Amino acid sequence: MAYDEGTTRTGANTTRSGLDAVDVWWRTANYLSVGQIYLLDNPLLERALTPADIKPRLLGHWGTTPALNLVYAHLNRLIVERDLDVLYIAGPGHGGPGVVANAWIDGTYSELFPDVSFDRDGIRKLFRQFSFPGGIPSHASPETPGSLHEGGELGYSLVHAYGAVLDNPGLIGACVVGDGEAETATLAASWHLNKFLNAESDGAVLPILNLNGYKIANPTILARIPEEELLALFRGYGYAPRIVSGGFDNEDPRLVHERLADAMGQAFDDIAAIQASARGGGEPARPAWPMLILRTPKGWTGPKVVDGLPVENTWRAHQVPLAGVRDNPEHRAQLQEWMQSYRPAELFDGSGRPAPGIDGIRPTLTHRMSANPHSNGGELLEPLTVPALEPNAIGLDGGRGAIAEPTRVLGGWLRELIAANPHTFRIFGPDETASNRLDDVYRVTQKAWQGEMLPTDEHLGREGRVIEALSENLMQGLLEGYLLTGRHGLFTSYEAFIHVVDSMFNQYAKWLESSAHVEWRRPVASFTYLLSSHVWRQDHNGFSHQDPGFLNLVVNKQASVVRVYLPPDANTLLVTAEHCLRSRNYVNVIVAGKQPTATLLSLDEARAHGARGAGIWDWAGTEVAGEEPDVVVACAGDVPTVEAMAAVQILKAEVPGLRVRFINVVDLMRLQDSREHPHGLTDDAFDALFTRDKPVVFAFHGYPSLVHQLTYRRTNHQNIHVRGFKERGTTTTPFDMLMMNDLDRFRLVMDVIHRVPHLENRYAALSQRMDDERIAHRAYTREHGEDSPDVSGSRGLPFRARSADAGTHLDTGDDNVTPASGPAGRS
Amino acid sequence: MAYDEGTTRTGANTTRSGLDAVDVWWRTANYLSVGQIYLLDNPLLERALTPADIKPRLLGHWGTTPALNLVYAHLNRLIVERDLDVLYIAGPGHGGPGVVANAWIDGTYSELFPDVSFDRDGIRKLFRQFSFPGGIPSHASPETPGSLHEGGELGYSLVHAYGAVLDNPGLIGACVVGDGEAETATLAASWHLNKFLNAESDGAVLPILNLNGYKIANPTILARIPEEELLALFRGYGYAPRIVSGGFDNEDPRLVHERLADAMGQAFDDIAAIQASARGGGEPARPAWPMLILRTPKGWTGPKVVDGLPVENTWRAHQVPLAGVRDNPEHRAQLQEWMQSYRPAELFDGSGRPAPGIDGIRPTLTHRMSANPHSNGGELLEPLTVPALEPNAIGLDGGRGAIAEPTRVLGGWLRELIAANPHTFRIFGPDETASNRLDDVYRVTQKAWQGEMLPTDEHLGREGRVIEALSENLMQGLLEGYLLTGRHGLFTSYEAFIHVVDSMFNQYAKWLESSAHVEWRRPVASFTYLLSSHVWRQDHNGFSHQDPGFLNLVVNKQASVVRVYLPPDANTLLVTAEHCLRSRNYVNVIVAGKQPTATLLSLDEARAHGARGAGIWDWAGTEVAGEEPDVVVACAGDVPTVEAMAAVQILKAEVPGLRVRFINVVDLMRLQDSREHPHGLTDDAFDALFTRDKPVVFAFHGYPSLVHQLTYRRTNHQNIHVRGFKERGTTTTPFDMLMMNDLDRFRLVMDVIHRVPHLENRYAALSQRMDDERIAHRAYTREHGEDSPDVSGSRGLPFRARSADAGTHLDTGDDNVTPASGPAGRS
Repeated sequence: MAYDEGTTRTGANTTRSGLDAVDVWWRTANYLSVGQIYLLDNPLLERALTPADIKPRLLGHWGTTPALNLVYAHLNRLIVERDLDVLYIAGPGHGGPGVVANAWIDGTYSELFPDVSFDRDGIRKLFRQFSFPGGIPSHASPETPGSLHEGGELGYSLVHAYGAVLDNPGLIGACVVGDGEAETATLAASWHLNKFLNAESDGAVLPILNLNGYKIANPTILARIPEEELLALFRGYGYAPRIVSGGFDNEDPRLVHERLADAMGQAFDDIAAIQASARGGGEPARPAWPMLILRTPKGWTGPKVVDGLPVENTWRAHQVPLAGVRDNPEHRAQLQEWMQSYRPAELFDGSGRPAPGIDGIRPTLTHRMSANPHSNGGELLEPLTVPALEPNAIGLDGGRGAIAEPTRVLGGWLRELIAANPHTFRIFGPDETASNRLDDVYRVTQKAWQGEMLPTDEHLGREGRVIEALSENLMQGLLEGYLLTGRHGLFTSYEAFIHVVDSMFNQYAKWLESSAHVEWRRPVASFTYLLSSHVWRQDHNGFSHQDPGFLNLVVNKQASVVRVYLPPDANTLLVTAEHCLRSRNYVNVIVAGKQPTATLLSLDEARAHGARGAGIWDWAGTEVAGEEPDVVVACAGDVPTVEAMAAVQILKAEVPGLRVRFINVVDLMRLQDSREHPHGLTDDAFDALFTRDKPVVFAFHGYPSLVHQLTYRRTNHQNIHVRGFKERGTTTTPFDMLMMNDLDRFRLVMDVIHRVPHLENRYAALSQRMDDERIAHRAYTREHGEDSPDVSGSRGLPFRARSADAGTHLDTGDDNVTPASGPAGRS
Repeated sequence: MAYDEGTTRTGANTTRSGLDAVDVWWRTANYLSVGQIYLLDNPLLERALTPADIKPRLLGHWGTTPALNLVYAHLNRLIVERDLDVLYIAGPGHGGPGVVANAWIDGTYSELFPDVSFDRDGIRKLFRQFSFPGGIPSHASPETPGSLHEGGELGYSLVHAYGAVLDNPGLIGACVVGDGEAETATLAASWHLNKFLNAESDGAVLPILNLNGYKIANPTILARIPEEELLALFRGYGYAPRIVSGGFDNEDPRLVHERLADAMGQAFDDIAAIQASARGGGEPARPAWPMLILRTPKGWTGPKVVDGLPVENTWRAHQVPLAGVRDNPEHRAQLQEWMQSYRPAELFDGSGRPAPGIDGIRPTLTHRMSANPHSNGGELLEPLTVPALEPNAIGLDGGRGAIAEPTRVLGGWLRELIAANPHTFRIFGPDETASNRLDDVYRVTQKAWQGEMLPTDEHLGREGRVIEALSENLMQGLLEGYLLTGRHGLFTSYEAFIHVVDSMFNQYAKWLESSAHVEWRRPVASFTYLLSSHVWRQDHNGFSHQDPGFLNLVVNKQASVVRVYLPPDANTLLVTAEHCLRSRNYVNVIVAGKQPTATLLSLDEARAHGARGAGIWDWAGTEVAGEEPDVVVACAGDVPTVEAMAAVQILKAEVPGLRVRFINVVDLMRLQDSREHPHGLTDDAFDALFTRDKPVVFAFHGYPSLVHQLTYRRTNHQNIHVRGFKERGTTTTPFDMLMMNDLDRFRLVMDVIHRVPHLENRYAALSQRMDDERIAHRAYTREHGEDSPDVSGSRGLPFRARSADAGTHLDTGDDNVTPASGPAGRS
């Protein structure tokens, strides 16, 4: 009872009571962690270890685990002492054994997985299942109670913590950041997220940087810079850092417990003081939030030397410090000694339950970090209040063709959505919300900003439903954290640069895929991307801004979690966005333009078309009822749809009587086989649309290969001819971009003529005509620096474009309805 | 001559001479930048601007440009004064007009593009071509003299600068970092790269953070934190920062020139002192390298107010401050006033050449930053000295099957490669070089490290050919910078996490694609990825570590720059790596395993197979010479190759007489149509290999859809049935991973039986047998925690596995030849 007698008040609320229990908890968690890595049986070491007790494959990461356990135990003590609501995020989540061990000690594990009972037999199963076929992963994962953070790919812990505490004023995200992880790009940027945290209405993040000194095979950068630099760095990031160091050279862990208890207690004092001030109407200046730097040996309490080489406090402690334990009696003895050093006889009662020594720091019910409902956000999820689409939809009483900027129209609806859901919906974007023309939202909200504000600033505020920093990684991670804690949101970005978060998307999709198999995980709101400023309207920004490949990445993930939409106009975008934001457990990708374009479908038509996902537009084709078409012209994506329509108009004039079926695809996964994707059309349905044997000319938003990938099993696949992005681009004009990639109306006409058998004799002449058109348009462009009015905007469509507001018919291209500001480019 | 008279010595070598010339240069560059954004004609404003003088589309980014120009001018002054070798990297490279303007003033532009002459007519063309169809991009790009950095996607400037100066002791990378760019994840991590720079043998980087305060539509984080935090941040990153601030509230630019000259001069003094000390045998401690923080108004010297709204020093200056200039006489007058404010009559002589006022700071020849040969690294490129493969190849005198770890074998050759090219070849990896078993290289080199070193450290040194930090972004960017300046290198990574750099790969591939069209760009060494720890041997690390999708990303780029290789064994890996490292201007992706596996081809066979790229292995099939096969079993990737071979062995036993053709594909692009990719097989060659009508069962390393994407045009495509990664994984065993994804030998046998018509009557019985095998193996795995010896390692192959060294035949699986250490996982 060394600590409890010596209780000292070191700060406003900080005591040293309960440190004995902390030490017992820590030893228990360490014991259970080692057991998971090594043991098949003999869980309480009630007899000497035999080879049969040892797993044949030794897997897992010990090095980071003791510090994860140490922090967990200390947090528990303060949770009990102060009745705190703490979410635990293990950045070095490959320390899975530790996170799982603590959940078991909490009792949560046995509640959620009754087979792993809260006794000796449960410990045996806990050990056996770890990183074992049919068992649990070696990293924190969806299977791990209390975790919303996958521990495989590193770098996203801190951004997840910040996302989780937004709009959760009572929540504290305690985030252990590994010093290896801290070298990743996203983590390095994440420290700055304190500039977006509102002390009044958001919760707090307590970052705990664990400097254990090593990553897989190297020292870490932050562990090898002078302490002066280390402190300067975190002060520079805007924190008030405290260093807790200890455990080196056999130092008594109890001294570390005292130091950590003091520092952590003070940190929670500071958080409480900051929040009290902000919430009591105090000075609104951005506070210096506390953070802890915990410097402890890697693999602390593990083997110090193995086979003559130092292990504790070196990179050799990273994974399994003792190898070949089954066959090597010396290593087996060393394992036995190591596990006995935690004194298991003191840690468990006769039945194998944790001894009462930890009861004083044992949180109950949802105060247990492993049972914090924020970590299973679906439990807290409230449906969005969804405003009607009608007030923002583009009316087509005057006929098709009302000009609108789709994302601007969406912005109007998002404005109402924000107003109706003031605490549970946010928009995240890398400085592109206005560039993507969603700025109508600023009529009801602001951009969250805790930095200095100047009189010339617009739309900045301490509270705001929009968060913008010039980092796709930060925006992606914040929304992940926000959704996983049971809220709703939207990520808007330029299409080309969304590849910056490819790997984060992959990991998030995998999280959703795995979560579906975890019974107690409740559905969360879908992650919805709105990709605008897309490849076909980045002509002015050039080749670096032209990339539609994110769709290819997305469709490779499990069909159960991915959805891709290419709404062709403003009304279909509205319908699509509403559908996506209401959905659960998906990643939705919407690609939509921001440039003025003709509205093609009334809201009701858009609803019907969206529900079908792919359908025939009679009004855009030249089919004759009851007769087979000669050719199918299909399209997906707003710009390809306009070109495809224009191509049909040319065909109508040039080849009267040609029966062209016009198909638009808004839900890309409709193309895939229904056996592959739940949205996939059946073969019969696909054949009914695309025919079994007619030529299909497909104008596609992305790489042509994607359509082939999705349709290669279809009956008529050999007749599907796709035009899309061919990785040809530069700084030019919209129509020239289409020509460079052979997606322009003239090329589409040539494709049709080329493929319809009975038009063979027309091919040479018509093809020459079309080529002449192309040459003329390119010459015009090179001369004038803009597209000829004949091909820009809505020219050549089967209706006359008109202003959405006044109903006035316009004969001009896009430029006349472009707002005064120039086109927006990245930064 | 205000400055020249008042010349003051402010440091060891720092003077204030030449500041008049700096101001003239700056005004000239600003004038030429504005002209590029706005003018079609009237380049020297020799008459009042008319609508016809103005471009119809106003594109480009003004906001960042004046600071880019300011820094360029000041650098010139010091280059001349001190005879420096400076590479200029424009982080906010969307300030393309500035970078281009300076190259024109340098004279370089007219030398490389004679059509844009060094006179009035050249200025007119310079203006007209900017962001004009058929002209040049609006960002710094391959077309930009002196640039090795694309200005589209932001965040990579500093890492490029560091990569460029490695092993270039005389070079200084002057890197302007934008404050928007500074928010990106990669940039935030890049500041730490000073921990890898050796003052003795590498050059120096001078980061110049331009705080102009705004990104597209928001203030920037770093511009809105207190100066105390700002300085602490960069001290924490290990720099000695100096702040230069000015130009606000109409402050005379001359005062800023003085301050910047002082600070920049001192920074170069510091760099010289640090290098002199390190190179004179001084204290090897890591120095605090200088950096500058330049705080100037966004869009400085541009319009202050437009239409009643403040523009200069706000986000509104980001792109085109005055819109609609053609039609708006007021804006046109404002443009005229703006351009006249630079006093063009003073800036150009009668012929339109820059006035002699700048001659004092005009560097000559390759001292011009726009003509620095390091920015066109192919000019400096020396071929690698390539050691023979033989000493490291696995001998097959004892027959096929010698067990080897392919990447470890490669490591032996890389060791010799490093020894033979001690200053021009480097390996970059995110802490995974040893985990990927390339650690033989540490026999001849070390890991570069300038941080604190401890006695327990291994393989760390001030100089080292390996650089490791736990950030794929940093490693990718360093190698890009290293290659673009004319050197050679290799990036090794885990396969799954290479997606972290998807977007960087995209941008780099686009750089290469565009460079091919720039006549004066010389070929650089290819960027080669070695992806190991691949999807099929990440069973122990689980789902988050299992992703083969990088290949899909890569094949979407232009065929002229991408190459993908899947060597099936150690010898083929050697041959492939040698080929890739000798190549130019490609991105090569090699996927290769690190686990012990049977060597299948002798070095000579591997050479022949590598040259073919795809070929029949008679010894692994059961074809009869002169007869058509019944079925083709094809494979690509090391693990799929083993399974495919094992499947054929089962077929041989179960269905005697079945004629199985066995094809291995090492060069994936062979599958693609020769019209699509230069490596693609012709249709005839493809048909000769894969037949025109026989069933093909294809065991593939990646997603099955990729094979379909590459082969959809092939005659026999409808008969190609692909097995690959189906996005099903967890923490399990190698064989169980294969079973989960239906890529195991038993499933492949079922596929063959199912598809060979005359075996229909065998299907039910044999399929049942195969299923029983699967069930038995899964049960074994669940019981024992490892694969049954019957299916692990090289069991079931058409030869007996044997140790590579002793020639002893082994009957066991991999585990017996696994090194003592446990499998390595990501940190």
